[in-house]
Amino acid sequence: MELTHIEHIGIAVKNLDDSIKYYENVLGLKCYAVEEVKDQKVKTAFFMIGQTKIELLESTEPDGPVGKFIEKKGEGIHHIAFAASNLKDTLKEVEAKGVQLIDKEPRRGAEGLNIAFLHPKSTYGVLTELCEKPAKSDE
Amino acid sequence: MELTHIEHIGIAVKNLDDSIKYYENVLGLKCYAVEEVKDQKVKTAFFMIGQTKIELLESTEPDGPVGKFIEKKGEGIHHIAFAASNLKDTLKEVEAKGVQLIDKEPRRGAEGLNIAFLHPKSTYGVLTELCEKPAKSDE
Repeated sequence: MELTHIEHIGIAVKNLDDSIKYYENVLGLKCYAVEEVKDQKVKTAFFMIGQTKIELLESTEPDGPVGKFIEKKGEGIHHIAFAASNLKDTLKEVEAKGVQLIDKEPRRGAEGLNIAFLHPKSTYGVLTELCEKPAKSDE
Repeated sequence: MELTHIEHIGIAVKNLDDSIKYYENVLGLKCYAVEEVKDQKVKTAFFMIGQTKIELLESTEPDGPVGKFIEKKGEGIHHIAFAASNLKDTLKEVEAKGVQLIDKEPRRGAEGLNIAFLHPKSTYGVLTELCEKPAKSDE
């Protein structure tokens, strides 16, 4: 397994437009994409800083995972995503080492990446995403 | 103001040794330093991944900021630190834009960096650190 960099940091926000303004006007970052991910019940906004993206997440439904997170913990950092090579094998490897997987198989996430989540119960409280760019033949 | 990359991600953990083992044995990262930061009442462990460090934080006192965080929210992602150029001016700039500062002036943090925290009340719930390498004359 090889993790190369932090692909993105997911941040749960109540209002996407207000928080985009903060990241642009105060921190000086530039929102380059807004995308809805229906199966996660979120609307997302992306900013690039160095190798890493900031992904703001606004829940589109109160019962979505981000809506529940905000209800329980308030707005704030939701997950870290590591860029992994060979995601399928990496998932098998971490599962064999005792980590509980939320996604047993990679699925398609925002920006067309293949993604899978590890359960925070087995990662010392950190909701952890692994992701990789799909091979050209998958696109 | 210019933020160049994510300098580190701070993660609150109950037990530094156990969580170091997870980051090393499961995620394949290498702990390159362990350091106590007395004024923050934490022991820290560092891992490098791409441009970014993972900084694990174990509280050395229950009443320290990380101890209180874990009591309230459980283990998990604690803060994001952006690398900033010219930290003093950057702090003035974000304060002028209405952000509440935890540190009005830069102070010395782990790894000898000059650091300052912004209050999560004015950053949409994200405890945000800005940091810069000290000029040679300050070292």
